[in-house]
Amino acid sequence: MAKQKLLTLLTDFGREGPYVAAMKGVLLSGSRDLRIVDISHDIPAHDVLAAGLVLAHTAPWFPPGTLNVVVVDPTVGTDRQLLYARFGGRQFLFPDNGVITFVARSAPLELIRLCRNADYVPSAPPSSTFHGRDVFAPLAVRLLEGLDPRRLGPTPQTYKMLQTPEPSEDVDAIIGQVIYVDHFGNLVSNIPADAISRRWQDPARAVVWCARTRIGPLRISYGHVEPGEPLALINSMGLLEVAINQDRASYAMSAGVGAEVRVTGE
Amino acid sequence: MAKQKLLTLLTDFGREGPYVAAMKGVLLSGSRDLRIVDISHDIPAHDVLAAGLVLAHTAPWFPPGTLNVVVVDPTVGTDRQLLYARFGGRQFLFPDNGVITFVARSAPLELIRLCRNADYVPSAPPSSTFHGRDVFAPLAVRLLEGLDPRRLGPTPQTYKMLQTPEPSEDVDAIIGQVIYVDHFGNLVSNIPADAISRRWQDPARAVVWCARTRIGPLRISYGHVEPGEPLALINSMGLLEVAINQDRASYAMSAGVGAEVRVTGE
Amino acid sequence: MAKQKLLTLLTDFGREGPYVAAMKGVLLSGSRDLRIVDISHDIPAHDVLAAGLVLAHTAPWFPPGTLNVVVVDPTVGTDRQLLYARFGGRQFLFPDNGVITFVARSAPLELIRLCRNADYVPSAPPSSTFHGRDVFAPLAVRLLEGLDPRRLGPTPQTYKMLQTPEPSEDVDAIIGQVIYVDHFGNLVSNIPADAISRRWQDPARAVVWCARTRIGPLRISYGHVEPGEPLALINSMGLLEVAINQDRASYAMSAGVGAEVRVTGE
Repeated sequence: MAKQKLLTLLTDFGREGPYVAAMKGVLLSGSRDLRIVDISHDIPAHDVLAAGLVLAHTAPWFPPGTLNVVVVDPTVGTDRQLLYARFGGRQFLFPDNGVITFVARSAPLELIRLCRNADYVPSAPPSSTFHGRDVFAPLAVRLLEGLDPRRLGPTPQTYKMLQTPEPSEDVDAIIGQVIYVDHFGNLVSNIPADAISRRWQDPARAVVWCARTRIGPLRISYGHVEPGEPLALINSMGLLEVAINQDRASYAMSAGVGAEVRVTGE
Repeated sequence: MAKQKLLTLLTDFGREGPYVAAMKGVLLSGSRDLRIVDISHDIPAHDVLAAGLVLAHTAPWFPPGTLNVVVVDPTVGTDRQLLYARFGGRQFLFPDNGVITFVARSAPLELIRLCRNADYVPSAPPSSTFHGRDVFAPLAVRLLEGLDPRRLGPTPQTYKMLQTPEPSEDVDAIIGQVIYVDHFGNLVSNIPADAISRRWQDPARAVVWCARTRIGPLRISYGHVEPGEPLALINSMGLLEVAINQDRASYAMSAGVGAEVRVTGE
Repeated sequence: MAKQKLLTLLTDFGREGPYVAAMKGVLLSGSRDLRIVDISHDIPAHDVLAAGLVLAHTAPWFPPGTLNVVVVDPTVGTDRQLLYARFGGRQFLFPDNGVITFVARSAPLELIRLCRNADYVPSAPPSSTFHGRDVFAPLAVRLLEGLDPRRLGPTPQTYKMLQTPEPSEDVDAIIGQVIYVDHFGNLVSNIPADAISRRWQDPARAVVWCARTRIGPLRISYGHVEPGEPLALINSMGLLEVAINQDRASYAMSAGVGAEVRVTGE
């Protein structure tokens, strides 16, 4: 079988309406030899931060060369720029609104271009509100068919990065916060595993607190405490996470994005 | 690569249960050389009108020849007919309940047949409640494998069309109503762009009202007003839409399907 | 076209986060010649019983040889075993938590193995919380590429089956209960069609009760009563179901899993 061209889609379009399928129709009209994988279409509406996190924890798992098309784009139709970039061997087509932040922090930038060459990027697209269908999709087809991305436009002077909270450290503790609540209600913090292992040779001696509640030491996985009991662990993103075994920590602890997460000695 | 046979699915089956996947299993058991694209499975249960709108705004974007299989079918197992039709180069397999209404209004009818030839349409299918799996899917496979649709049965005398509200005009205004609320809470009206441009040479001079609230002139896109501010624009379906930038107009304005939308002079 | 390798995914990961797509990325990185079909990712979190029912009513519809990968796995990272099995010509990769129960009751077991050969099953995977990505996906790729499943490990002594309620019969009635509420709010019972037909030669003479309310005789399909009226029928799973035409029986009757369903003579 010929090698298929692989493209992922990440949007906040939802699935009950026509938007996702209209975009796929354009993609498949442009190229039948194209494989489309949905990252998610259920990003909360206009939530560039959540989209950025999801992108950074999915794109690296796809084969090198995959084109990731991101349409979480609350300022569509204004003068926000459309960017093409290659980070760590993966390609990205995205609005310049900060959605690339977490990818850019974790993988080397290899190429970036403003998409403004009118040969490929319509200056007056059919709609001003649905560039996913009318701009991103046709452009993605051209890129997968071999268009050299250097022809899209000039290298931008800069591109937008989100200001996100970083964990801090003092003499007693590492202090971070919840940055994402996942499907299971698990509270994902911004404290990376290595910040803990750097400070405690034996990570099992670290004690985790969330929203001023003592959670306890780091566990291996959810099932290492009883159902209904809280726990802390290093999750599959390499981040400190607070959870409740087989329950929703976000509900049970009334905690969400912004809640303090603290790691102290015993 | 051989040209793949392209089929879309549009249902109200939801995604938490077995229905969508059972149908896909039958399709793939019948033909491995088949590409399936989900239009949506999250149409509100039994909502033929919403399904019809979504179908009309997705099917034209897919390549000619695509077979669109629609199973929003509240009267499954009764004497409602199963129809095959070709409109504007796209194929449709659907229950005769009006779901084809908006497609039929916007694309020329090229062929229509009642599906009742017992060679292809089982008269006593395995279930009376799940024709998606037991009737539509096997028939779709036959059609994609080259069955001449003229063999399915006779041309029907008529087929069901939904009665939907049409905008009216008086000396002061175009008066329409909201017919669809999208994923973002945007209020999509039944007033087409050309009804406005026919009446106001400079569409920027038209003023839009929704639920007796003055929204203002037509804007290019959402980001042309401040976040939280209401606006009106021509959307990607070519219809007048009332929205709030980065918020849900349906909530904020307590408006939904049926709410009055009015366009007046300045 | 070469025959594609077919794999299904059934999880409780939801669709708003990175989990499903990360798993697909690993699958496609391992094998581009692979077709992935989503069974569902919207199984209620940790609901092994619901996942088991959905699996049993979808897997048989896929072509023989399909590999079904099930990651509803609340005890991930503990000493729960990972199993490979072949039932009725279909392959399954699943945690040993009972999710295979309904498949095992309806199809013959042909092969079963503990997955513990360290050549294929990492003993210290990258994460302890996301074996879908780090264990199931790489192993699925190996299996679809032709790895003999007998090499995965020994045949287990036993495997976990859920204890589920079975219908009983007395002199007056068949007594069962609701075991699943579907997307439409239909109440699916554990009473199979043949339990009724064995007892009443003319099934139309049987009368169905649900939560002590008389529903009436068996109907052919939903549309055989007026909209808003309750009815009973044999559904597409071959089970007795209580529904309301074009409405949600679960809401209207305040009934759910565990509600009594009873079949009596006239």
